[in-house]
Amino acid sequence: MGKKKKRSHVGDIRLFSGSASSELAHKIAEHLDLPLEGHDLVCFPNENLFVKLHSSVRGQDCYVIQTTSSPVHNNFMELLITLQTLRLDSAARVTAVVPYLCYARSDKKDQPRVPITARLVADMISSEADRYMTFDLHAGQIQGFFSIPGDVLSSFSILTDHLKALLPNMYQPVVVTADLGFAKKARNFAESLQTPLALIEKRRTGNDARAKAMGIIGEINDHDVILVDDEIDTGGSIAEAVHLVKQFGARDVYIVFVHAVLSLNAAERLAALPVKQFICTDTIPIPPDKAAAFGDRLTVLTIADLLAEVILRANQGRSVGALFDE
Amino acid sequence: MGKKKKRSHVGDIRLFSGSASSELAHKIAEHLDLPLEGHDLVCFPNENLFVKLHSSVRGQDCYVIQTTSSPVHNNFMELLITLQTLRLDSAARVTAVVPYLCYARSDKKDQPRVPITARLVADMISSEADRYMTFDLHAGQIQGFFSIPGDVLSSFSILTDHLKALLPNMYQPVVVTADLGFAKKARNFAESLQTPLALIEKRRTGNDARAKAMGIIGEINDHDVILVDDEIDTGGSIAEAVHLVKQFGARDVYIVFVHAVLSLNAAERLAALPVKQFICTDTIPIPPDKAAAFGDRLTVLTIADLLAEVILRANQGRSVGALFDE
Amino acid sequence: MGKKKKRSHVGDIRLFSGSASSELAHKIAEHLDLPLEGHDLVCFPNENLFVKLHSSVRGQDCYVIQTTSSPVHNNFMELLITLQTLRLDSAARVTAVVPYLCYARSDKKDQPRVPITARLVADMISSEADRYMTFDLHAGQIQGFFSIPGDVLSSFSILTDHLKALLPNMYQPVVVTADLGFAKKARNFAESLQTPLALIEKRRTGNDARAKAMGIIGEINDHDVILVDDEIDTGGSIAEAVHLVKQFGARDVYIVFVHAVLSLNAAERLAALPVKQFICTDTIPIPPDKAAAFGDRLTVLTIADLLAEVILRANQGRSVGALFDE
Amino acid sequence: MGKKKKRSHVGDIRLFSGSASSELAHKIAEHLDLPLEGHDLVCFPNENLFVKLHSSVRGQDCYVIQTTSSPVHNNFMELLITLQTLRLDSAARVTAVVPYLCYARSDKKDQPRVPITARLVADMISSEADRYMTFDLHAGQIQGFFSIPGDVLSSFSILTDHLKALLPNMYQPVVVTADLGFAKKARNFAESLQTPLALIEKRRTGNDARAKAMGIIGEINDHDVILVDDEIDTGGSIAEAVHLVKQFGARDVYIVFVHAVLSLNAAERLAALPVKQFICTDTIPIPPDKAAAFGDRLTVLTIADLLAEVILRANQGRSVGALFDE
Amino acid sequence: MGKKKKRSHVGDIRLFSGSASSELAHKIAEHLDLPLEGHDLVCFPNENLFVKLHSSVRGQDCYVIQTTSSPVHNNFMELLITLQTLRLDSAARVTAVVPYLCYARSDKKDQPRVPITARLVADMISSEADRYMTFDLHAGQIQGFFSIPGDVLSSFSILTDHLKALLPNMYQPVVVTADLGFAKKARNFAESLQTPLALIEKRRTGNDARAKAMGIIGEINDHDVILVDDEIDTGGSIAEAVHLVKQFGARDVYIVFVHAVLSLNAAERLAALPVKQFICTDTIPIPPDKAAAFGDRLTVLTIADLLAEVILRANQGRSVGALFDE
Amino acid sequence: MGKKKKRSHVGDIRLFSGSASSELAHKIAEHLDLPLEGHDLVCFPNENLFVKLHSSVRGQDCYVIQTTSSPVHNNFMELLITLQTLRLDSAARVTAVVPYLCYARSDKKDQPRVPITARLVADMISSEADRYMTFDLHAGQIQGFFSIPGDVLSSFSILTDHLKALLPNMYQPVVVTADLGFAKKARNFAESLQTPLALIEKRRTGNDARAKAMGIIGEINDHDVILVDDEIDTGGSIAEAVHLVKQFGARDVYIVFVHAVLSLNAAERLAALPVKQFICTDTIPIPPDKAAAFGDRLTVLTIADLLAEVILRANQGRSVGALFDE
Repeated sequence: MGKKKKRSHVGDIRLFSGSASSELAHKIAEHLDLPLEGHDLVCFPNENLFVKLHSSVRGQDCYVIQTTSSPVHNNFMELLITLQTLRLDSAARVTAVVPYLCYARSDKKDQPRVPITARLVADMISSEADRYMTFDLHAGQIQGFFSIPGDVLSSFSILTDHLKALLPNMYQPVVVTADLGFAKKARNFAESLQTPLALIEKRRTGNDARAKAMGIIGEINDHDVILVDDEIDTGGSIAEAVHLVKQFGARDVYIVFVHAVLSLNAAERLAALPVKQFICTDTIPIPPDKAAAFGDRLTVLTIADLLAEVILRANQGRSVGALFDE
Repeated sequence: MGKKKKRSHVGDIRLFSGSASSELAHKIAEHLDLPLEGHDLVCFPNENLFVKLHSSVRGQDCYVIQTTSSPVHNNFMELLITLQTLRLDSAARVTAVVPYLCYARSDKKDQPRVPITARLVADMISSEADRYMTFDLHAGQIQGFFSIPGDVLSSFSILTDHLKALLPNMYQPVVVTADLGFAKKARNFAESLQTPLALIEKRRTGNDARAKAMGIIGEINDHDVILVDDEIDTGGSIAEAVHLVKQFGARDVYIVFVHAVLSLNAAERLAALPVKQFICTDTIPIPPDKAAAFGDRLTVLTIADLLAEVILRANQGRSVGALFDE
Repeated sequence: MGKKKKRSHVGDIRLFSGSASSELAHKIAEHLDLPLEGHDLVCFPNENLFVKLHSSVRGQDCYVIQTTSSPVHNNFMELLITLQTLRLDSAARVTAVVPYLCYARSDKKDQPRVPITARLVADMISSEADRYMTFDLHAGQIQGFFSIPGDVLSSFSILTDHLKALLPNMYQPVVVTADLGFAKKARNFAESLQTPLALIEKRRTGNDARAKAMGIIGEINDHDVILVDDEIDTGGSIAEAVHLVKQFGARDVYIVFVHAVLSLNAAERLAALPVKQFICTDTIPIPPDKAAAFGDRLTVLTIADLLAEVILRANQGRSVGALFDE
Repeated sequence: MGKKKKRSHVGDIRLFSGSASSELAHKIAEHLDLPLEGHDLVCFPNENLFVKLHSSVRGQDCYVIQTTSSPVHNNFMELLITLQTLRLDSAARVTAVVPYLCYARSDKKDQPRVPITARLVADMISSEADRYMTFDLHAGQIQGFFSIPGDVLSSFSILTDHLKALLPNMYQPVVVTADLGFAKKARNFAESLQTPLALIEKRRTGNDARAKAMGIIGEINDHDVILVDDEIDTGGSIAEAVHLVKQFGARDVYIVFVHAVLSLNAAERLAALPVKQFICTDTIPIPPDKAAAFGDRLTVLTIADLLAEVILRANQGRSVGALFDE
Repeated sequence: MGKKKKRSHVGDIRLFSGSASSELAHKIAEHLDLPLEGHDLVCFPNENLFVKLHSSVRGQDCYVIQTTSSPVHNNFMELLITLQTLRLDSAARVTAVVPYLCYARSDKKDQPRVPITARLVADMISSEADRYMTFDLHAGQIQGFFSIPGDVLSSFSILTDHLKALLPNMYQPVVVTADLGFAKKARNFAESLQTPLALIEKRRTGNDARAKAMGIIGEINDHDVILVDDEIDTGGSIAEAVHLVKQFGARDVYIVFVHAVLSLNAAERLAALPVKQFICTDTIPIPPDKAAAFGDRLTVLTIADLLAEVILRANQGRSVGALFDE
Repeated sequence: MGKKKKRSHVGDIRLFSGSASSELAHKIAEHLDLPLEGHDLVCFPNENLFVKLHSSVRGQDCYVIQTTSSPVHNNFMELLITLQTLRLDSAARVTAVVPYLCYARSDKKDQPRVPITARLVADMISSEADRYMTFDLHAGQIQGFFSIPGDVLSSFSILTDHLKALLPNMYQPVVVTADLGFAKKARNFAESLQTPLALIEKRRTGNDARAKAMGIIGEINDHDVILVDDEIDTGGSIAEAVHLVKQFGARDVYIVFVHAVLSLNAAERLAALPVKQFICTDTIPIPPDKAAAFGDRLTVLTIADLLAEVILRANQGRSVGALFDE
C-alpha cells in the first residue's frame, strides 16, 4: 500500500470528522498520516447547527466522514451543512463518506402511498457533494439513486477473513440468514466459508397480519450456526432467529453483521442470548456502555484502514476496485 | 369498476400503441371503449425512426403503450421519440406505459467498472414523460431510479388467482425458486397459495468461475413443484432447475413467470422439458410460432384489463392502490 | 370571504397535519370545514420516519402543515418525507405549509467559510413541493432562495390590530427594536401604530469579541415601550433589552414577536422580566407548561384563519395579495 | 502577498475585460503582471452583440471583468455572452467578476405581484459561469441566490482605512445612515471608526403615500457627520439627508459609499450639496465629466489590488478569507 | 373558427402587452374580445426595470406579447422579468409570445471561439416560461434550443396570399434570394407562386476577405423579380441585390420579408431603391417616421389575427397545426 | 504538430473503441502511439448490452470513439452505456467521439406533430458525457442542442485538398448540389476549388405530393460536374441528380460526400451510375463487400489523423481551432 506523493489534480486530501464518526475519522487520519482539519460545529439553543471551517479549502479534495446513525436527522443535516460549507468555500471536490447510510431500508414502494426515502437522502447528498463513499448498502440498487459517482464498499472480506480464522474451532458450521431478502448475500458468505446455507422463513398465518409462523429451510440440527445480516437494529428478529435455531438443534451460535445500529435495549437483549460471539464493524460507533454489555463476546472489526486506502486512491486517481479484486 | 365520465384536469385519455405492444394496446382500448390514436411510424432506410401524429394532442392526457422487448433498442428509441413528439405537441400529460422494462437486471454495480443501465433508462424516460407505468420490476428499488411518479404494477394476483384454481389438482404442491434474489417474492407466492417453499442454490466450485454446484434447500421429494420467476430469458436456468427438482424427486412441475422474454431457442428448449404447464402474462407478446411450440401447455394471462383500469383511474384522479388492496 | 365551491383545476384541497403543527392544522381544517386527511407516521426504533397515507391523493391539491420548530431536524425530515410521499402518489399539486421556517437566520455568509443553510433548506423543499407557504421570514430575501413559487405571509396586521386596541391604555408608547437588522420592520410597526421609534445598539468594546456595550438611539424615558422582534429564541437579547430600557427610564414594557421559539429556559427567563404583556402568534405551538409560566400575561394570536383563507384562494386561483391590501 | 508561480489544476489565469470595466481590468492585469486577453466585441447595427476570442482558452482559468452599470442590459448580456463563449470553448473554469451587480435591490417580494429580479440575474450567471466575484451586495442574502460558489468581497476596510486617516481632522464625528435597512452595516462603520451612530427615519404621513416626514434618531447637533450608504443612484435620498442633518445642526458632512451609480444628473446634484468630501470606490467607472463636477472633493479608492489578489488566490487554491481576517 | 367558451384546465387567458409590442397586443386583444391586463412597468433612473401586476394571475393562463427588436436587451430583460413575475405569482401557465426572436442569427459556431447566443436566449426563456410562440425563425433548428414546447409560426401564407393577388399584374415573375442559406425557403415561395427561382451568389475574391464578387445563378433577364428574405436589417445586402438584378436585366422589383428590423438608416436606404413594392409583417413595429419614408410602396401585413387564433387554441387544447394545414 | 508530454489536469488520455468504429479507433491510437483500453462488451441473448472496463479510469481523460451508423440504436445505446460506465467509475472527464451523429436530419419541426430527435440524442449524450466531438453535422445549429461543450469538426479541407489535386485533369469543373439546404456549403466548396456553382431544384407539381419536377439552376452543359453532399443514404437522390446532370449535358461526374451511410442497396445502385469517382471519408466504416462494388472508383479519406490531433490538443488544453485556421 504505497503512499508515495503524487500531485493530484483535485487538490490535496482534507479530512473532516463529523460529530458522529469521530473515532473512525481519527483512525483514518492516523492511517494516512494526515491531520483532521479543524472546524467548529455549533448547535444553537434552537437546535440549528452551524459550521465554520478553521481554514480555507479552496481548490482542495475534501472528505467529510460522518455516519448517519442516532441521532439520525441531526447527523444527516450536519453532513449536508458541512458539505455545503465546503462547496461554497470553493473546494475542488467534496466527498461524503457515510459508512452507514440512513433510510436505506426505505428503498422501494412495496405498498401504495409510501415514500422512497433512500432516494430523497441520495438526492440531498448528490446536490451538495461531488462523490460519496458508503458501506454495505441494504440493497445494491441504492447506488442507482445517486446522481453522482461513488464507491459502495463492502466489509465482506473483513468479516469473512475474521471468520475463516474461527472456522477450525467450529463444528459443522452452517450459514443462516433470517431475512429472505438477504439470501443471496448469505449464499456468498457460505460460499466463501465453504459451508452449507440455511434460511429462516417467516410468514403470516390466518387473517391477523401480526401472527407469524417461522420455519427453517435447510439443515441445521447439530451444526454450529453463523447467523449473518447487514444490520442489527432492535435485535428483535435476530433474537427470534437465535431461539429458533436453538429449538431446531443448533449448537454454538455466532452472529455476524456489518452495521451495529443497536436501538433501544438491543445491546442488553442481544447480550442475554445464548450466542457464543458477536462480530461486527465500526461503521457505527458502539457506545462503551453498550459494548460493555457484551463482555468479551463482542468483536468490532475496523473499516478505517480500508477506507483510508480508498480515500488515498480516490485522490490519486488509482483503482479502488483493485483493492477488492486482489 | 365504474367508468362514469368525469372531467379530468389533465385532459382526455389518448392511447397510442407502440409497435411492440400492438395487441395489448388494442385490448386496452377495447376495455376502455376508446380508439387508439393514429400516428405514422416510419423507419427510414438508415434505420432512423420518425413519428407523426395524425391529430393534435394539445392539452390531452396521453399514454404510449410500448414494451421494450426485442428488438430492444429500436423499441426503446421508438418509445422515447413518441414521448418527445407528444411533449413537444403540448400534451397536458404524457405517460410511458412499459409493461416490460428493459435493462432492469443492470440495476447495481455488483462488480467494479460496470454500468447501472437501468438508471440510464429511467433517466431517459423521466426526461420525456410525466409519469410511467410498468409491471413487476426485477427489483422494486428501480422505482427509485425514476425522477417522476409512476405506477409499478404487479401481475401477482393475476398469476396466483389462476394457480389457486389449479391447486386442488396438485399433489402436495411446493413453491420453488431458482434465484436466491427472488426468495422473498417466492415466499409471498407460497404464502398466498398456502404451500411450503424451497430454494435452489448455485455456487461456484473451486477456482473455475464457470463450475457450479447446485443444491436444494428445503423439501421437494414427492411434491408437485411450482417453479416461479419474474422472467424467462433463454430458459437455461429454468431448464437446469427442472432437471434438478426432477432429480430430487419432484412429481409434476409447473413454471410460472411474468415476462416471456424467450430469447434464442428458449421456446423449443422449454417445450422439451418435462413440465406440465407454463403460465405467464402478455407483458411481452409471444410470437405465434414460439407459442405453438408449447402446444396447449402454455397459458398466457392478460394484463390488459388491469392496465386499462389503472389508466382510467390515473386520468380521473382516483386511487390505483385501491385496485390491489381490494 | 366567500367559500363558494368552484371547481379547481388542481384538484380538491387535501389537508395533512405534520406532527409539529397538529393544533394549527385542526384550526385550519375547522375554518375550511374540511377533514384532515389520515396518514400514519411511524418513528422506527432506529429513528427512521415512515409515512403511509390512508387514501390516495392522485390528482388532488395537497397541503402539508408542518412547522420546523424543535425537534427541528426530525420535523424537517418528516416534512420532506411527507411531501415526497404525496408527490410519488401522483398528487396534482403539493404545497409545503411551514409557518416557521428553520435555519432562516443562516441566510448569508457574513464571515468566510460558513454555510448558507437557508438555501439548503429551500432547495430541499423546492425539490419535493410545487409551492410553499410560510410566515414572516427573518429576511424577505429568503423567498429568492426557493425555485418554486410561494406565499410568504405576514402576521403584521394580526399583531398591530391587537396592539391598536391596547394603545389607548398606554402612556406615550414608543416602538423599540433590539436588532438593528430589524430596524426597517420596526419602523413599519411604529408607523402603523403612529408612535415614535427607538433602537438599541450593541457594539464590541476593545479587543474582546465578547464584551459588548449597549446604548439606546432615540428617546424612551418616561414612555411605555413596545419591544418588537420576529422571533424569541433563548430570550437572552430581549432580557438585556428589557433591563436596558428600564434603566433608561421606560415605564411599562410590552414584548411583541411572531415566532415563539422559546429554547432552553426562555419561558421562565421571560416570565421573570418586568414586562406587562407578551404578544405572539401560534406559528410555533407553545407547550402548556411553558405557556403556564407567563400566567395571564401571554396572548397568542392565531394565524389559522388567515392561513385557511390563503389555502382556499390558492386552490381556487384567486388573489392572495388582495387579502393583505384590503 | 506572494505571487510565486504554482501550477494550478484549473489552468492558467486568463483575464478578459468587458467593455464596462476596461480601466479596472487594466489595473488588475497590471497588478498581476499578466496581459488582458484579446477578444473582439462587435455590436451589430441590430444591436445584437457578438464575441470572438483571439486565442483558445481550452483548459484555462478564465475571468471576465464586467460591471453591470449603465447601459445595464447591454453590459449584462455582454457578460453572459462572453461567459458562454468561454464555456463553449472548453475553458477549465470560468469566473464572472462583477464588481457592481445590477438588480440587487430587487431582492424580495415586499409587495404582491412583483419580481425578484436579483434571483433571475443570479440564475443566468450561474448557468454560464463556474464561479462569481462581486462587491458589497445590497443584501448579503443575494449570495444565496447563486447556485455556484462565489466570493462576495467588501470594500469596507478600503473605505474605513481611508476614513481613519481623516478622523483626527474631524470634530466629534458621528456615522449616520439614511436607510434603516443599512442600520447594521452603519453600526459596523461606527464601531470600526469608534464613533456614535445616528439614523434618519422616513415615514408616510396621512393617507398620501408620497408625503413623507423625516426625523433623526440619535444625536448629531454640533457633530461632523459621516453619511454612509452602499450605493448612490440619483442622489435624491442623500440630498434630503444632507439637508436634514444640516437642519439638525450638523457641522461638516462627509459622504461615503461603495457604488457610484450616479444616474441622471446625480453628479451635479451632489456637487451642489454642502458636503466636504465624497468618498467612493471604482466598482463602477465614473466618467470624467461627472467626476469633474466634484472638483477635488471626490476621492475614488480602487478595488483593483484587492481583486487582483483574490483572483490570484482563487487560481492557486489559497484562502481568500485570510485576506480580510488579517 | 369558433370561439365557443370551453373551460380550459390551465385557467383563463390573460394577455400582457410588453412595451415593444403594444399595437400588436391591442390587435390580438381586440380579435379575442379580451382586455389587456394592467401592469406597471417602471424604468428606474439606474435603468433597472420593475414590473407590478395590477391583479393576481393565480391559476390563470398568461401570455406575454413582447417582440425583441430595438432596444433589444431592454426588451428582452423586460420579457424575462415579466415572465418571472407571472411565474412567482403562481400563474397556471406562462407563455412567452415573441414575434421576432433576437439573436436568432447567432445559432451556430461557424468559426471557433464564438458564442451560440440563440441557445442562451432560448435557455433564459425556457427557465421562466412554460411555453413560447414565435414567428419564422432564421433557422428552424432553433426550436430545438428550447427545453419547453412551443409554436413556431409562419407568416408564409400571409405573405404568399398577398403576393398571389399581385401576380396577375407582374411580368414573368421570378423569385430570387440573396442568401444561399435561404434557398430552400425561397424555393417554397417560388413553388407556391408557381414561378421560377434564381439565386444570388457572393464569394470572396483573392486574399482580401472583404472583396466579394456577386453573380446570379438562374435566369432573370426581362423578368419581374420578387426578392425574398426572412428579415431586413440595415438593408445593405438587399440593396446590393436590387442593383445586381437590375444590372442583369430585371424589370420591376418587389421585396418581401417577414421581420422589419430596419436598423440605422435602412428605411431611407431602401426607399431610395428602384423597387416597386415592399411587403412585410408587423412582427416588429415600424415607427411612423420610418414607414413614411416608403410612401405608399410599403405594405405591412398583420400577424395579429393568426396569433390570436393560436392563443385561443392553445388555451382550449385544440390543434394549432390544423390552422396551417387547412 | 508537437506531441511533447505535458501534464494535463484532466488526467491522461484513455481511448476506448466502440464496436462501430474499431478500425478508426485503431488508427487514432496508432497516431497517438497509445493503446486502446481494454473493455468487455457483451450482448446478452435478450439483446441487453453490458460493458466492463478492464482497468480503472479514476481521474483519467477518457474518449469513447463510436460512430452511430447501422445498427443505429444498438450503437447509440452502446455509446451511452460506455459513457455512463466511465462516469460512474469516476473518470476525470469523459468525451463522446461520434464521427457520424445519428438523427441529425430530425433537427426541426418542419411540420406539426413531429419530433426533434436530434435534440433527444444531444440531451442523452449531454447527460452522460462532459464533452463531445463529431464531424460535419447536417446543420451547424445542432451544436446548440448540446448542453456541454464540444468540437464539431469538418472534413472540408480533407476533401478539398484531395479534389484540388484532381482539378488539373478536369474539364471546366462546376460544383453542383442536389439539396438546396446544402447550397451554402456547396458555395464554400466551389469557392475553395475556384469553380462555378449550380443547383438542382426539385418541386412538387400539381396536387400529388409525390410528383416532382427537377431542374437545374446554373450552367453545367459541357462541364465536368462535382456533385457534393454531406451524406449519402440510399443513393436515391444522388442517382436522380446524376441522371439529370447527364441529361443536361454534363461530361464526367464526381461524387463527393462525408458520411457513407449507404443503406439498402446503395452501394450497388451508386456503382451502376455513370460516375467517374466517388470520394468520401471514414466517419462510417464501409464494409468490404460494399466497397468492392465500386472497384477502384472509390476513395476513402481518413479523419483519423485529424481526430487524433484534436484529442491530443483537448487533453493538453491547446487550441483546436488553430488546426483549421492554419
